[in-house]
Amino acid sequence: MRQESSPASVQPPLSQLPAGLCAAADYARLAPQFIAAPLLAHIDGGSGRDRTATANLAAFERWQILPRLLRDLRHGHTRRTLAGTALRHPLMLAAVAQLGAVHPQAERAVAQAAEATQTPMVLSTLSSLSLEDVAAAGGATRWFQLYLQPQRAATLQLVRRAEQAGYQALVLTLDTPVQTPSHRALRAGYRAPQALPPNLQPMAGLPAAPTAPAPALGADDSRIFQGAMQAAPRPEDLDWLLGQTRLPLWIKGVLHPDDARLLAGHGVAGLVVSNHGGRSLDGAPASLDCLPAVRAAVGPALPLLLDGGIRSGDDAFKALALGADAVMLGRLQAHALAVAGALGVAHMLKLLREELELTMALAGCATLADIGPHCLVAAPGQAHSSPVV
Amino acid sequence: MRQESSPASVQPPLSQLPAGLCAAADYARLAPQFIAAPLLAHIDGGSGRDRTATANLAAFERWQILPRLLRDLRHGHTRRTLAGTALRHPLMLAAVAQLGAVHPQAERAVAQAAEATQTPMVLSTLSSLSLEDVAAAGGATRWFQLYLQPQRAATLQLVRRAEQAGYQALVLTLDTPVQTPSHRALRAGYRAPQALPPNLQPMAGLPAAPTAPAPALGADDSRIFQGAMQAAPRPEDLDWLLGQTRLPLWIKGVLHPDDARLLAGHGVAGLVVSNHGGRSLDGAPASLDCLPAVRAAVGPALPLLLDGGIRSGDDAFKALALGADAVMLGRLQAHALAVAGALGVAHMLKLLREELELTMALAGCATLADIGPHCLVAAPGQAHSSPVV
Amino acid sequence: MRQESSPASVQPPLSQLPAGLCAAADYARLAPQFIAAPLLAHIDGGSGRDRTATANLAAFERWQILPRLLRDLRHGHTRRTLAGTALRHPLMLAAVAQLGAVHPQAERAVAQAAEATQTPMVLSTLSSLSLEDVAAAGGATRWFQLYLQPQRAATLQLVRRAEQAGYQALVLTLDTPVQTPSHRALRAGYRAPQALPPNLQPMAGLPAAPTAPAPALGADDSRIFQGAMQAAPRPEDLDWLLGQTRLPLWIKGVLHPDDARLLAGHGVAGLVVSNHGGRSLDGAPASLDCLPAVRAAVGPALPLLLDGGIRSGDDAFKALALGADAVMLGRLQAHALAVAGALGVAHMLKLLREELELTMALAGCATLADIGPHCLVAAPGQAHSSPVV
Amino acid sequence: MRQESSPASVQPPLSQLPAGLCAAADYARLAPQFIAAPLLAHIDGGSGRDRTATANLAAFERWQILPRLLRDLRHGHTRRTLAGTALRHPLMLAAVAQLGAVHPQAERAVAQAAEATQTPMVLSTLSSLSLEDVAAAGGATRWFQLYLQPQRAATLQLVRRAEQAGYQALVLTLDTPVQTPSHRALRAGYRAPQALPPNLQPMAGLPAAPTAPAPALGADDSRIFQGAMQAAPRPEDLDWLLGQTRLPLWIKGVLHPDDARLLAGHGVAGLVVSNHGGRSLDGAPASLDCLPAVRAAVGPALPLLLDGGIRSGDDAFKALALGADAVMLGRLQAHALAVAGALGVAHMLKLLREELELTMALAGCATLADIGPHCLVAAPGQAHSSPVV
Repeated sequence: MRQESSPASVQPPLSQLPAGLCAAADYARLAPQFIAAPLLAHIDGGSGRDRTATANLAAFERWQILPRLLRDLRHGHTRRTLAGTALRHPLMLAAVAQLGAVHPQAERAVAQAAEATQTPMVLSTLSSLSLEDVAAAGGATRWFQLYLQPQRAATLQLVRRAEQAGYQALVLTLDTPVQTPSHRALRAGYRAPQALPPNLQPMAGLPAAPTAPAPALGADDSRIFQGAMQAAPRPEDLDWLLGQTRLPLWIKGVLHPDDARLLAGHGVAGLVVSNHGGRSLDGAPASLDCLPAVRAAVGPALPLLLDGGIRSGDDAFKALALGADAVMLGRLQAHALAVAGALGVAHMLKLLREELELTMALAGCATLADIGPHCLVAAPGQAHSSPVV
Repeated sequence: MRQESSPASVQPPLSQLPAGLCAAADYARLAPQFIAAPLLAHIDGGSGRDRTATANLAAFERWQILPRLLRDLRHGHTRRTLAGTALRHPLMLAAVAQLGAVHPQAERAVAQAAEATQTPMVLSTLSSLSLEDVAAAGGATRWFQLYLQPQRAATLQLVRRAEQAGYQALVLTLDTPVQTPSHRALRAGYRAPQALPPNLQPMAGLPAAPTAPAPALGADDSRIFQGAMQAAPRPEDLDWLLGQTRLPLWIKGVLHPDDARLLAGHGVAGLVVSNHGGRSLDGAPASLDCLPAVRAAVGPALPLLLDGGIRSGDDAFKALALGADAVMLGRLQAHALAVAGALGVAHMLKLLREELELTMALAGCATLADIGPHCLVAAPGQAHSSPVV
Repeated sequence: MRQESSPASVQPPLSQLPAGLCAAADYARLAPQFIAAPLLAHIDGGSGRDRTATANLAAFERWQILPRLLRDLRHGHTRRTLAGTALRHPLMLAAVAQLGAVHPQAERAVAQAAEATQTPMVLSTLSSLSLEDVAAAGGATRWFQLYLQPQRAATLQLVRRAEQAGYQALVLTLDTPVQTPSHRALRAGYRAPQALPPNLQPMAGLPAAPTAPAPALGADDSRIFQGAMQAAPRPEDLDWLLGQTRLPLWIKGVLHPDDARLLAGHGVAGLVVSNHGGRSLDGAPASLDCLPAVRAAVGPALPLLLDGGIRSGDDAFKALALGADAVMLGRLQAHALAVAGALGVAHMLKLLREELELTMALAGCATLADIGPHCLVAAPGQAHSSPVV
Repeated sequence: MRQESSPASVQPPLSQLPAGLCAAADYARLAPQFIAAPLLAHIDGGSGRDRTATANLAAFERWQILPRLLRDLRHGHTRRTLAGTALRHPLMLAAVAQLGAVHPQAERAVAQAAEATQTPMVLSTLSSLSLEDVAAAGGATRWFQLYLQPQRAATLQLVRRAEQAGYQALVLTLDTPVQTPSHRALRAGYRAPQALPPNLQPMAGLPAAPTAPAPALGADDSRIFQGAMQAAPRPEDLDWLLGQTRLPLWIKGVLHPDDARLLAGHGVAGLVVSNHGGRSLDGAPASLDCLPAVRAAVGPALPLLLDGGIRSGDDAFKALALGADAVMLGRLQAHALAVAGALGVAHMLKLLREELELTMALAGCATLADIGPHCLVAAPGQAHSSPVV
């Protein structure tokens, strides 16, 4: 993202669709006109030197799609049943923190777009609006993304509120036990509080309970191990949570096939193959590169979502071909929201779905079940890596 | 194509050969002086982000040609018999739509160049001039490129006109059941109607029959599957067409070896390995990368043409070495036509043939039959992909 | 290093920490403000065309790190016992020549930082201050880097001084029997003597003994073979040295597994896999690329250090995963020293340790023993080389 | 070569060594100050798009050299006996056409440098000075490069003159039966005659005999096959030549192992692995890439020279390691001659020899016989190609 624009030069969100779009990904191209540069650096940046965030995108370019001829696709569709839920298409709106920073309607607008396009939406624990407010705004399929809170009571309070507000599943994020800074955001001058409009309460989704005091560190202690990692999720926390709720529990942040196997054994509803959009360990492999081994590890039955790097319908096609049941949209959601609110998000989803349909049509796939590894070929000059154990 | 030139700055076509050409590919370098930027973006652009159009070119650079010494090539030539037709050289003029947009003589000029250089020419269904007018202009070997029309009667009318006008073969294009936009052309401001000079009727080759009404879509229907794909070619259409004409039927747009095998079983005359110049599925493999597996799938006898990315005689040599019987020229044809009309197209073909002969001479190949995979070596640092099943 | 700054524009070292650092590697980004361009070209440049210096950095980017979930890391630490010495972390300060050129406190400041951060330090034979002065400045774990002198008596004098000053090990550098110029430094106008501030005696660590006279060369003699290589270390020199001291003897500059095996057989304390920071043979492989084969050659027991290209905690993690017991910091030490003296070096080490801890935490490694090749995956599109014999 | 300089701005050759050289390759960096841009484009350009000329250089960067420790190299040297001739070093001056274009002393200066540095020199058939004049200028080891002339009598006249002038071997160039233009040179405005100073007779080495008339071409004939290739060397020409002279006959331009095997069977003295500096078939593999397979094809005994891309002593080392007995210098010879005449060529050779010695010293090789494939490792991220049959 090269453009530098002072906050003064940023436009307010449109109330109509932007002109001149070629593709869903063009919302990312428009975003610098609507999001101040420091905030955009925070949204687009990965952790550290953006290596994993960059890898997430590059991974898709290492595959090509094989066109097929003469297929009868008149009854084609993109419907899928995911863990018992009928989906109109395999596109989902990922949990994105503090969307109020880019649009005054925040997650409410996302919920409206989700409802209009029959797209499942995952609300972030760190939402700008309370989970109850977002639930009231609509969204046929609403899931709640959960960070384990330092105290179990606080976690439980969030779970109960999500249950009562009608969220149909929990998505537990496990891949960021420690915060990792983004050099891009830091250099762009991003500072979390100032970037939020004054009328928005950051993290309004969080319970009022005070955060746990930082543990006291000895002289030889590490701020990482004896500090942040004291509150990091451990297997017993997962088991505890599974015992507290009847909501299906998804796990987000899985990359290693052994972790996938372990989690599948715990009885989770499904996994989200994700590296937190490149915002956790800088230098981790691309989500897409990890997908085949995770699918191989858990077998064909366990639902898998792919998160990270989806910018087009052919990206979605490749993820489905390599083992995902559906894909999640994070940054593109924020971009479209900033550009044109609920309308933008709905339009982005519509474009993406049509791009997926177009790719399916040309690849000769009438349904999602027809999409598989046989539809892809490795791009020349590329080796593929996958964490095989 | 970086140059931006307003239509006002574009020259009229030359009536003599341009000066300072080093190679046939230089017609592409001159084209921006003769074709307005939006139209050139349309001609040169592939679909989407030009990934496949770019891959078509890059594929040739992944092969190197092995020189040989002391060969007696005094009786060398580039003649070949292709499906019963004697060719002076393995170069063909591909079907290109609406050539009237770049030269007032349109396909007539191409036919004159084809006759002058003894080059087979394929006329597009979407020609600027009627197929009868083009037939009257000459061309020893003329084939007709066919898109199946929404109504079979309209298709049949085209076939009959082609038969009566003396076209010797049909080339059925199957690779674009749905239109895919070019981002490059859209961003350059290309709009189909305005780009055509007012004295030219676009698609004059098409019958007067009205196009089929767009199918009515239900609320849950897809514009792709329940819309465009309703009229897409299906196997029964191919069988129907084969029963309607005695003209040899070639199929254009084959990339997957299974499709090649299937089509060979239907009794077609030959196949054109092509991705529509990167104008259909953006992200499909390069034509050249698919050629070896298609040749392996159909065996040595079925004629194969390679379309996509040929810019020089050594490109043609590589395609022949990897299994093609001849190659097709699309964009370079349009460039040469825009620069210098029939003279330009003929000159481009002459340069290309001499480049091929030069390559053959240095590679020690007296005839096309001497060209094979043993003449090539993979360029270092490159892996090769091929859709092996 | 693009920045060109005249000596006049260079700042004096800070006496406080610089603002706006994102990572330890930022000391390299700040260095041009504190080191005159010719001297910086000498510090940062490798020999010849910088191929090996560049390769040292690139090697780390060919590996990715696999995150793991739900690990209990509350008791994590970075402690390790290396050849009997307890280390707080696997980071060491490499021998760097003439540090007085970048900071008036020279190696004294490094020793203070080493003591403050419990980091082992290796003092260069070519230090700006005498080894006794540096010993007096502190440093819990101090080793002495040794170049064999032309006369054994001079070498022995250095060894005895190091022993008496309490250095706990010797690090014999074997990889630069001949000096190789840096084109970058030469083109930047670097000339050794002028670059040093007048108040500093270069090579104050060297004994007063006169250097050996250059051997007289015959007409057919080579300045390399019959000149410089006359004084180059040979196996008998190593055996002699081992017989002269009870200090553990490390060998620096090993890349080939056969050399590693040979040296292990001589009874050395450990090896430093290094190409002298790319300052010896330009075109030699990256240190990291050689590490796995060296580890395989010597087995799991012999201590190995990795020197060359470490700029971050995840670089250190990768080196440990591929077989190193600890890593050495050279250029980054000089950069941090130039920016902020002892404070800068200590801060750089603290940042680096926390980056390593962060990487360990996200990769699920509680201790250094948990780090291994299973934590890494080859970055896509990369082949790995290793001098297997 | 980016620099554009009008002929007016070009300096006359120096009569002293240039200042500020870091390496032999710096003569190439200085050349634009001494050679007018069009002529330099001709000298530096390969044929076509410079693909092979570029590949010749890139091939060396795909190998790395393994340093070795503790070797006794005090008796090291670079001497070698090549086909009975004792060489001081494995560097040879390749045949370069019309050196009078870059220096008034032309090949005479080269002969003086050859004598001063004990370097074998190959005089081009297309020299600016007669072979007798060059012989009179010195050069301990002088070979004559031969193009077969259209008439055998003319060829024989050249051979006899070479014999009588004391040339000790013939080097028959077989790789350019047809001329191929350089796009770079054409675009730079290079035209052969104008580029030569008026006081120089181009091709003064050629006999006065008139060139053969161009063969008359029929309407269907090819200018390549029925034109230029009529006079191209054939096996019987080689046998004829071998029967006409007792001089050892080397063959230049071999890339394919089958051609190497064939030629070895004809009793030639040795082979030069070369693609004519990338000036023949554009798109042929790099010379270095072909060397291992040629060496494997002819076995260890037949002398092999490597021509193409040598710019440094470590390049020479890599060629020797991969099977060459010596290497040839073409473009660097022209550059050094243009910069500083005989002095420049001699200096360039001295620098190159010392770079080779330095590389040998650091790689632990006392003699050329110690250099082999075990000294190299493939650079990471690189695949290697070789025309295996």
